[in-house]
Amino acid sequence: MTTDLQIDSSGKLRHLITLDGLGHDRISDLLDRAVELRQHFAEAGQRPQLLAGRTIINLFFETSTRTRCSFELAARRLGATVLNFDISRSSTSKGESLEDTVATLEAMQADAFIVRHRENGTPARLAACTRKAAILNAGDGNHAHPTQGLLDALTIRDRHADFSRLKVTICGDIRHSRVARSDIHVLSALGARDIRLCGPKTLLPVASEFPHLRIFEDFDEAISGCDVVIMLRLQRERMVEALIGDEAEYFSRYGLDSTRLGRAADNAMVMHPGPINRGIEIAEDVADGRQSVILDQVANGIPVRMAALSSLLGG
Amino acid sequence: MTTDLQIDSSGKLRHLITLDGLGHDRISDLLDRAVELRQHFAEAGQRPQLLAGRTIINLFFETSTRTRCSFELAARRLGATVLNFDISRSSTSKGESLEDTVATLEAMQADAFIVRHRENGTPARLAACTRKAAILNAGDGNHAHPTQGLLDALTIRDRHADFSRLKVTICGDIRHSRVARSDIHVLSALGARDIRLCGPKTLLPVASEFPHLRIFEDFDEAISGCDVVIMLRLQRERMVEALIGDEAEYFSRYGLDSTRLGRAADNAMVMHPGPINRGIEIAEDVADGRQSVILDQVANGIPVRMAALSSLLGG
Amino acid sequence: MTTDLQIDSSGKLRHLITLDGLGHDRISDLLDRAVELRQHFAEAGQRPQLLAGRTIINLFFETSTRTRCSFELAARRLGATVLNFDISRSSTSKGESLEDTVATLEAMQADAFIVRHRENGTPARLAACTRKAAILNAGDGNHAHPTQGLLDALTIRDRHADFSRLKVTICGDIRHSRVARSDIHVLSALGARDIRLCGPKTLLPVASEFPHLRIFEDFDEAISGCDVVIMLRLQRERMVEALIGDEAEYFSRYGLDSTRLGRAADNAMVMHPGPINRGIEIAEDVADGRQSVILDQVANGIPVRMAALSSLLGG
Repeated sequence: MTTDLQIDSSGKLRHLITLDGLGHDRISDLLDRAVELRQHFAEAGQRPQLLAGRTIINLFFETSTRTRCSFELAARRLGATVLNFDISRSSTSKGESLEDTVATLEAMQADAFIVRHRENGTPARLAACTRKAAILNAGDGNHAHPTQGLLDALTIRDRHADFSRLKVTICGDIRHSRVARSDIHVLSALGARDIRLCGPKTLLPVASEFPHLRIFEDFDEAISGCDVVIMLRLQRERMVEALIGDEAEYFSRYGLDSTRLGRAADNAMVMHPGPINRGIEIAEDVADGRQSVILDQVANGIPVRMAALSSLLGG
Repeated sequence: MTTDLQIDSSGKLRHLITLDGLGHDRISDLLDRAVELRQHFAEAGQRPQLLAGRTIINLFFETSTRTRCSFELAARRLGATVLNFDISRSSTSKGESLEDTVATLEAMQADAFIVRHRENGTPARLAACTRKAAILNAGDGNHAHPTQGLLDALTIRDRHADFSRLKVTICGDIRHSRVARSDIHVLSALGARDIRLCGPKTLLPVASEFPHLRIFEDFDEAISGCDVVIMLRLQRERMVEALIGDEAEYFSRYGLDSTRLGRAADNAMVMHPGPINRGIEIAEDVADGRQSVILDQVANGIPVRMAALSSLLGG
Repeated sequence: MTTDLQIDSSGKLRHLITLDGLGHDRISDLLDRAVELRQHFAEAGQRPQLLAGRTIINLFFETSTRTRCSFELAARRLGATVLNFDISRSSTSKGESLEDTVATLEAMQADAFIVRHRENGTPARLAACTRKAAILNAGDGNHAHPTQGLLDALTIRDRHADFSRLKVTICGDIRHSRVARSDIHVLSALGARDIRLCGPKTLLPVASEFPHLRIFEDFDEAISGCDVVIMLRLQRERMVEALIGDEAEYFSRYGLDSTRLGRAADNAMVMHPGPINRGIEIAEDVADGRQSVILDQVANGIPVRMAALSSLLGG
């Protein structure tokens, strides 16, 4: 249903709500376009103003550094006008519905809304009611974070052209993670067949959600021979502490230190969506080590979001 | 006095504080310019950069979506640099007077300040002390909201060329409404002679304020045969509840539903400055219905503010 | 040590952390460049886009009007993309270290960070860990505020070409003032030899900090014959009240009124970094009087910051 919502009747991508069901070709096209834009911006003087004259509005109902700044920089470097909607000073604080706020801003010729919300489905709900404006999901609840999935896929694809042979472990709080879900969707769409989910029982998804994936409670077992290790943030602000017990014990069982990383494939990539809890889910020396591609992920966020925005808004 | 303040010795508009006393010709000129700018921006590729190199500062001391975003987009689409002054993080929180803050920002070559403040007269006070910068009133207390008046006038003029035959009802909390006052001023200046004010006694202005207007406590009577119905927001955050009693009862007497709208002229325009309290002052189906021009009002806010800014700052 | 940090191995200025040890020639060059940029922007149509394509991020951990707006306007008028990092909505509020936040933003191709922080040494700490991005100190604790020092020096130099004959008094809370320290450094570097520090004992620095300067507790004595009087803000928000006793008594001993100003040289310049506490450290008529250059200081902030940014980032 959400897939239908994001594709218009002529088959064009109209919103970006989820990667689930988007399919290999569309995703590959987005990544190819991101590579092209990355190349343009690496060359001095090249700054294609694909979004000149366009207005993009950030609607972030949850705190964010990476995603908000990354979207804003992507849009502004392509020439768009970006407006950061200040939730706490807005009419939503006067009881206006989010739908009315979006309709109002769309009447001011806003072309796209970047939406982050703690509730699953908010971006889809808004996509259902805009007239022409595109909705880009910047993270909703534990449902989806499609641009994070795309930038993770690009970071892997930069080193592994063929996903069908890839061994990937995703470790941590998978149950509450929209990043894990979007990563699973994009990796599967691009052909990955060996995706392993690992975490303490309380943080694992219900078995029926991903019937085709292997689930581990033993990280040493899961990581064995893997090419890619995606560590998730322990979202301490969501009070998962009650679910994991002691942080030191969590680290000993599910933290990524250099010994454990030694069990993975040679030159295995270490990934993390950030922000990192150093010493809780990942050891300091691994986070900053030569196998870490955490800052490459951040860097790839910009061209991936440029690709998404220009695909949705471009002429 | 405020009229004198906003006109310089050569007769040029220098600030926009109120529409009261501005006169038919100046107002018509502003609306004509808005129509011209609206046309330019509707045509692909046309984006006159009338404010290139100019700096405009938003000083909002009250929450706002429509007005702040609308001014910001109007200014940026004309090429201005817009700076949102963050009140809570500023020196005013260190006890600096507003006059000193404005003088400081003017010394940085700010060309205009957009000011919203809960106290009547703050924009006029600031206009009296700037050296060259223009002050645009974005709403002060219950005194004036001139760009709202202009955009309402434009929305009406798009459908009714001749204001002299117009029957208009303004309904709701007129006593506390700067929108009502600016609407009355602009409609009167443009020739409207049949303006009716309606609301419960506790929310009506004192009779002496508008001696030439008819005042109604019965909405069914007031709306009868009207071409334009302007509903006002019930500002629940200002604790008018004590003044109106029960919201359901308020809606039954002063809410606009389709039955009541049937008493107005055919194709009567339904207007509201937003944000709407659905089901309190206006029924859902009327707010979203074919006679509602609420989103046209929002859309017209952009060219009207472009017109005001470029008139005040333009060469 | 901090001096080394801000100069790269080829002798180029890489960060701007402090004026201490920066030397006469570098400082003069920055002021010359500021004068040049000031001239360009005073001439219609001239707007050198020296920072086009560059990204500059404001990281303000303390409230600010002048400095944040001044840096933002300086950068934007030179064509940079400026992003205001909202501390309270960011990952630092999720426990991320400032170093990780900066590394993340640098991975998004941020070219410079403008940093204000209440702790001495934060900008230097960040300068030590960026890869390529420049750090500009916008005020750290009571350590340094280099662009304020530069703009004060420029404002004085506009009227006094030769600093060696200058008599300067700095009066107020010198102990807690980064402005005083940066002023002392810049004035000394430019050749001033008669710099007098004045304030109540509790607000004076320890004698060993500035062994070459004269320290006064009597303002009438200190101000006598001075060409420049730099008044400091009494930072009431830092609870210095306990250190000064009654404000009225403070004003009578250390406030600048017209009688006291009469003891200074004819046409002595009255300076203040703002925001002013009128009637506490400076009398109303002196703050607004003909000898006050307070708004000139503000105006000079823009070209000085343009000069600093374009020196650090320019090709």
